[in-house]
Amino acid sequence: MILVLKASATAREIAAICDRIRSLGFAPAVGSAAERVVVSFVGAGPAIEPDLFSALPGVDKILPLRPAYRLASRAAHPADTVIRVGDATIGGGNVAFMAGPCSVENRAQTLEVADALAGLGVKILRGGAFKPRTSPYSFQGLHESGLEILAAVRERTGMAIITEVLAVADVPLVAAYADILQIGTRNMQNYPLLAAVGAQARPVLLKRGMSATVEEWLLAAEYILSQGNGNVMLCERGIRSFDKATRGVFDVSAIPLLKKLTHLPVIGDPSHATGHWDLVAPVAKAAVAAGADGLIIEVHAHPDQALSDGAQSLRPARVAALLTDLRRLTAALDRGLDVRDMGLRLAERSVASAA
Amino acid sequence: MILVLKASATAREIAAICDRIRSLGFAPAVGSAAERVVVSFVGAGPAIEPDLFSALPGVDKILPLRPAYRLASRAAHPADTVIRVGDATIGGGNVAFMAGPCSVENRAQTLEVADALAGLGVKILRGGAFKPRTSPYSFQGLHESGLEILAAVRERTGMAIITEVLAVADVPLVAAYADILQIGTRNMQNYPLLAAVGAQARPVLLKRGMSATVEEWLLAAEYILSQGNGNVMLCERGIRSFDKATRGVFDVSAIPLLKKLTHLPVIGDPSHATGHWDLVAPVAKAAVAAGADGLIIEVHAHPDQALSDGAQSLRPARVAALLTDLRRLTAALDRGLDVRDMGLRLAERSVASAA
Amino acid sequence: MILVLKASATAREIAAICDRIRSLGFAPAVGSAAERVVVSFVGAGPAIEPDLFSALPGVDKILPLRPAYRLASRAAHPADTVIRVGDATIGGGNVAFMAGPCSVENRAQTLEVADALAGLGVKILRGGAFKPRTSPYSFQGLHESGLEILAAVRERTGMAIITEVLAVADVPLVAAYADILQIGTRNMQNYPLLAAVGAQARPVLLKRGMSATVEEWLLAAEYILSQGNGNVMLCERGIRSFDKATRGVFDVSAIPLLKKLTHLPVIGDPSHATGHWDLVAPVAKAAVAAGADGLIIEVHAHPDQALSDGAQSLRPARVAALLTDLRRLTAALDRGLDVRDMGLRLAERSVASAA
Amino acid sequence: MILVLKASATAREIAAICDRIRSLGFAPAVGSAAERVVVSFVGAGPAIEPDLFSALPGVDKILPLRPAYRLASRAAHPADTVIRVGDATIGGGNVAFMAGPCSVENRAQTLEVADALAGLGVKILRGGAFKPRTSPYSFQGLHESGLEILAAVRERTGMAIITEVLAVADVPLVAAYADILQIGTRNMQNYPLLAAVGAQARPVLLKRGMSATVEEWLLAAEYILSQGNGNVMLCERGIRSFDKATRGVFDVSAIPLLKKLTHLPVIGDPSHATGHWDLVAPVAKAAVAAGADGLIIEVHAHPDQALSDGAQSLRPARVAALLTDLRRLTAALDRGLDVRDMGLRLAERSVASAA
Repeated sequence: MILVLKASATAREIAAICDRIRSLGFAPAVGSAAERVVVSFVGAGPAIEPDLFSALPGVDKILPLRPAYRLASRAAHPADTVIRVGDATIGGGNVAFMAGPCSVENRAQTLEVADALAGLGVKILRGGAFKPRTSPYSFQGLHESGLEILAAVRERTGMAIITEVLAVADVPLVAAYADILQIGTRNMQNYPLLAAVGAQARPVLLKRGMSATVEEWLLAAEYILSQGNGNVMLCERGIRSFDKATRGVFDVSAIPLLKKLTHLPVIGDPSHATGHWDLVAPVAKAAVAAGADGLIIEVHAHPDQALSDGAQSLRPARVAALLTDLRRLTAALDRGLDVRDMGLRLAERSVASAA
Repeated sequence: MILVLKASATAREIAAICDRIRSLGFAPAVGSAAERVVVSFVGAGPAIEPDLFSALPGVDKILPLRPAYRLASRAAHPADTVIRVGDATIGGGNVAFMAGPCSVENRAQTLEVADALAGLGVKILRGGAFKPRTSPYSFQGLHESGLEILAAVRERTGMAIITEVLAVADVPLVAAYADILQIGTRNMQNYPLLAAVGAQARPVLLKRGMSATVEEWLLAAEYILSQGNGNVMLCERGIRSFDKATRGVFDVSAIPLLKKLTHLPVIGDPSHATGHWDLVAPVAKAAVAAGADGLIIEVHAHPDQALSDGAQSLRPARVAALLTDLRRLTAALDRGLDVRDMGLRLAERSVASAA
Repeated sequence: MILVLKASATAREIAAICDRIRSLGFAPAVGSAAERVVVSFVGAGPAIEPDLFSALPGVDKILPLRPAYRLASRAAHPADTVIRVGDATIGGGNVAFMAGPCSVENRAQTLEVADALAGLGVKILRGGAFKPRTSPYSFQGLHESGLEILAAVRERTGMAIITEVLAVADVPLVAAYADILQIGTRNMQNYPLLAAVGAQARPVLLKRGMSATVEEWLLAAEYILSQGNGNVMLCERGIRSFDKATRGVFDVSAIPLLKKLTHLPVIGDPSHATGHWDLVAPVAKAAVAAGADGLIIEVHAHPDQALSDGAQSLRPARVAALLTDLRRLTAALDRGLDVRDMGLRLAERSVASAA
Repeated sequence: MILVLKASATAREIAAICDRIRSLGFAPAVGSAAERVVVSFVGAGPAIEPDLFSALPGVDKILPLRPAYRLASRAAHPADTVIRVGDATIGGGNVAFMAGPCSVENRAQTLEVADALAGLGVKILRGGAFKPRTSPYSFQGLHESGLEILAAVRERTGMAIITEVLAVADVPLVAAYADILQIGTRNMQNYPLLAAVGAQARPVLLKRGMSATVEEWLLAAEYILSQGNGNVMLCERGIRSFDKATRGVFDVSAIPLLKKLTHLPVIGDPSHATGHWDLVAPVAKAAVAAGADGLIIEVHAHPDQALSDGAQSLRPARVAALLTDLRRLTAALDRGLDVRDMGLRLAERSVASAA
C-alpha cells in the first residue's frame, strides 16, 4: 500500500503514520515523489483496509496495490474454476444453461415446464421455493413443499436443481434438496447467509447486488470462499439505473472484466435484467458473445398465469428456438453448449426400453 | 386498480382479464377511455400486485391506485408515530440526537466517547458490536462482549443504546442488551431479519438500502410493521450515485416526501452519507431544516485511531459545536432538540451529592 | 391521454380539467374506473405533454397512451431505415463497421491507421477534429486542418468519414468534409445543434447522453427528424453508473428495445462504454449478438502515443482479429458484415494495375 | 503526478514513460514504493491529463496530485467570489433569492408574478424565454419577445433578470437583455456555449449536468473562467437517480463540498430537484442550512395554468411564507437574506411620493 502525504504533512504526522503501519505488523518505508512524502509498505498478511489510514492527519491519497479479495482473484488462481453438478459442467469454456419458473407454484405447473425443458436437453432446473418479495403481501413461495416438488422433478427428469435460500436457518433444509444454492440480489451482502452457504458443500450461485460494484461482488464471493466452499458462480442480473424502460441494465461489460479478475464462472440472467420476455433472447446471446459461462432464464408454460415474473418468462417453445440459436452462436465462438444431445438421448432411451 | 388494454385487445382477452380479476376475489368493471378498453376493480382485501396482470395478453398499462404499503401509510394512520426510548422521544416534532462510535472497539474507547456525549446531554448512544463489512478480512466487531460494554455504558450514563443486528439468530441477544435495534443498509431487504425484528418489542431503526426507492423502503418497513412492531424509524443514510466525491448522496428531498407518505419518524445519517467529517455538520443541519425527526452521527474521541469510519467521525468537541448550532436552528424552526439540559442536570447532581 | 382523478376531485375541478382539454383542441370524455373519475381524450394533433395537466387540482395520475416521439417510432414507420454512405450500408440487417482514432492528431498518424483499416476492408473511418474535452486544458482537436486530413484519407482509401460536430456554427464546415456527422454524448440535448444537423443533408450518428433514458434519446432523434433529415443512427456508448470499474455501462438491453421502438439503425460503441481495450472485442460481439446494426470502434496504430483515449484504443492487428470473429458471429446470426471483401478487392486492384 | 508501475514493468517501459514525461516538458523522477517503481514529476505548466499515460505499457496506477481545474479552485483563490447584480449580492455570506416563472408565457402572466415577487422584496427575477424542452413538440419559449417582457418587468420593478441562453448565436441578444445568463443542465458540457458566455461580461449561473460529477462541473466552470469571465455561480438542481419519486435528487452534500473546493457561489434549485411544489420549501431550507449562497425557485401566480413546470411552481403567497421562514433560518445561522426590506421600502416610497 502506498500513502501519499499532504504537502503540509509534518514530521510528527509522518512518524505517527509509520507507527500505525508498524502496529499492524508491517515495515514502513518513507520516500518521496513529486515533492510529496510517500510512505509505503508491503503486506504479506491479511488484507489491510485503506480505512485504517484515512483519518490519520497528513494523509492525502491512499493507493492499495492489491485487490481486497484474494481467494476470488485470478492472479492467485489462474485456472478457471469448473463446477460439476449432475451431468452439467459450469465454467471452463462451455456455456451452461439453467432454466425454469420464477416460483414453484404447484406440482402440475412445475412438472409441465420441467418436462418441456428436459425434453429440450436442459440439465439444470431453476425454481423458487423461498421467494424474496418486495411487498410482504406478495406470494412468498411454497417453502418446503416447493422443495419437495423440485426433488420429485429431479427424480423424474434427471435435471439438477438450483433454488434460492433466504435465511441462515433454512440453509440445511435447502441444501438437503437442492444441487445449487442461489443467493439473491437482495442478499449479496447478507454476510451471515454468505458464511452459512460457505460452510456447506453445495455450489453457490451469487447474484450481484442491484447496485454492487464488481469489487463488492467479488468480496461477497470471498465471504463464501473463505469459509471453504470454492464452488461459487457469479450471476449478473442487471443493475439499477435511471431508466425504467427495462427492469435493470444488464452490465455486459462486467462479464469480460470478471473473466480477467477472477477464476469463478460468470452466469448471465437476462430475464431479471430486462423484465420483458421479448428482450431475453437477444440479451442471452449478448451475454454468451461477451464470454459468459452460462445462462439462467425464467420459463413458464403459461406466463399469463404465473404468480410472479410472468412478463419476463419465456414459453418452452421460445426456449427451443433460443437453444437452436445458441448452438450456432457457441459454435461460431468455438465453444460448446452444455445441453444434452436429445437425438442421442432418444436413442439411449430406445436401447434402454429394448433392454 | 385500473388496466388500460391495448388498442388490439380482443373480446377473448378482455374476458380472460376479467376472469383473472374474479379469481382474485374482485369484481371487474369494463369501460373505455380514449378509445381504449379499461378494466378496473376496487380492492378491499390484501394488496394486489401489478405483476399478476403484466403478462396477460391485451394488457397495455397497469395503474395501481393505492400504495402497496398500508400500515406504513400516512393516509391510513394520519398521526405521527412517536417512539419513546429511555427519556428520549423520537417523532412528533422534536429532533432526536443519537451519536457514538462506528464500532465498539474496546471498553476504554467506548467509555471515553460515551462520557463525552453524556456530558453534552446526548440521550442515545450508537455503537456497533456486529459490523457488516464489505471485506471478510475487516474487523467484524466484538459481538457479545461489545454488547456488554454498551450495557455498562448505559448503566453508567443513563443513555439509551442503539446497535445493529445482522443475523436472525442474534436478534434475541441484541434485543436483550439494546434499546433500539438497527437494520443496516445492506439488510434493508433481508426479509427474515425484518420479520424477526418485527416479532420482538424493541424499536427498530431501518436504514435505507443503498439503491432502494422510497417505495421499496416503505415496503421493507411494512415487513416489520406487519409482524406487530409499530415502532419503526426510517434512516436516510445516502444513496448510491455516479459521483465518488462523497461516499453517498444524502437524499434530502426524501425527508419531506416521507413526512407526506408515512407517519413513521425519519432520521438523517450525515456521517455515512458524506464519508467526510467536515461535511457532517452542514448536512446534519440540512436534514433538520428539511424536517428530519432526528440525527444519528458517528463520533470518536480519536478518529485517527478508529478501527472503522475514522474519516467520517466527529470529535466530541465538534459535536458540542453542532449541538449549539442545532439548538438555534431548531428554535428558528419552532422545534425542540431532544437533548438533556446539562445546566439543569448539573444542578440536580449538586442536589444529589448534597443529599 | 387518460387522467385519473383523485378520490376527492370536485365537480368544479372536473369541469376545469375538461376546459383545459378543450382549450388544447380536444374533446374530453368523462367516465369512471375503480371508483375514480377518469377524464380522457384522443389526440390527433401534435403531442400533448403530461406536464400541461400535472398542476391541475384534482388530477392524480396521468397516462399518456402514445410515445411523445412520432417520426422515430416504429409504429408509424414499420420498415427499417437504411442509410447508404459511400459503398457502406447502415441498417436493414447487416452489421456496419466504423473504426478509427479518437482524435485526428496529425497527417501521419491518421494515414497510418486509415491505411491499416482500409487494408482490412473497413468502409467507414471515424476520427475527431473537434474534440469535446472535460477540461479546457486538454487537446481540443485540429479543427479544419483535421477535417482536411480526413478528406485526404477519403481520397486515398475510398473510406467514408464520420466525425463529430460540436457547434452550430461549424455544421456547414463539417458537413462539407464529412460523410456522417456525429453528435456526441454531451450534446444529445443541445437542441440548436440537433436542429442544425437536422436541417442539412448528411446522415447523423446521435450518441446517447450519459444518463439519457431511451425515451429522451428518441426525442432527441425526433428533433433531427422533425427538421427533415431522416438519416439518423442511434449510438449506445455506455451510460453512467455507480461502478467505476469500467468507464460506462454498455446498456446492451437497450439495443433490442430500440429495435422494437424505432426504425432507426442502432450502433454500438464498446470503446467509450468500457474504456479498456481488452474489453472492447467481447462487448462488440455482445452488441452484434443483441441485434446492433453496426459498431464504432477506436483504433490507434500506437495507443501508447495517443493524445486521447489511448487506453481504450485497439491496434489494427486486433481489429483484424475482431473482424475475423465478427464474420463468423454474423454468419451464425444469419447476418452479414458490411466490410469490403479484400480478396476480391486485391483481385480488382490487380486488374486495374494491369489495365 | 505520480505513476505507480506494474510489478512487471521493464527498464525499457520505464525509459519510455520518462521520455513521455520529458516530451511534455517535465522532469521525471524515478523512485520506488512498496516494491513498485514509481515515476513522478511536478507540473508547473498547464494541467496534464492522466489519459496521456494510461495507455503506456507498464503503468498500473496514475495519481494526479492537483485538481484539473485551477481558476475555480479555492486553493488558488481563497476568498469567496462575490457577484453584484443590481442591488443584489451573490456570494460572501448572505443568501440570495431568485424567483419567477419557468417560462415567460405572456406579458400579463409575467407582470403578475413579478409584481407579487417585487412586493415581497425579491431582487432577482427568473424566467425562461428560450426553453430547452425534451420534446420538439413542447412549448419552446417566446424568444426575443420574451426577453422584451423581462426587460419591461425590470424597468417596472427594479428587479434584475436571470434567463437561460441555449445557443451561441443567441448570446449577444440574451446578454443585451439579461443581468445574469443561465446555462441549463443539458448544456453544462456544451463547450462552445460555455466559451461564448465566458467571453462576455454578464455573470453566469451554471447548472450542474444531470449526471455530472462535482469535478466535471468545476471543469465546466473552468471553461467559462478561462475565457475571462470570473462571475460564475454554480447551481445544484438535482441529479439523476434510480428513484422517480422525486424528479431528481438534490445533492445537498455537494454544497459544503463545493464551499471547500471552490470560491464560486453555490445556488440551490429545489424546484427542479424535487418536481413537487410541496417539497420545495423544505429543500430550500435544507440548501441554506447546508451553506448555499442562494436559491432559485419557480413561482407562478396560477400554477394550474402554467405552460411548463406547473407542478413544481409555488404560488406567491407560499413564497411569502418561505421568505418569512428563511429570515428566521438565516438569522439562526448568522447569515442574512438578500431581500429588500419592504417596510423600509414602503417608507422610502412615501417619502418619494411626498417629495
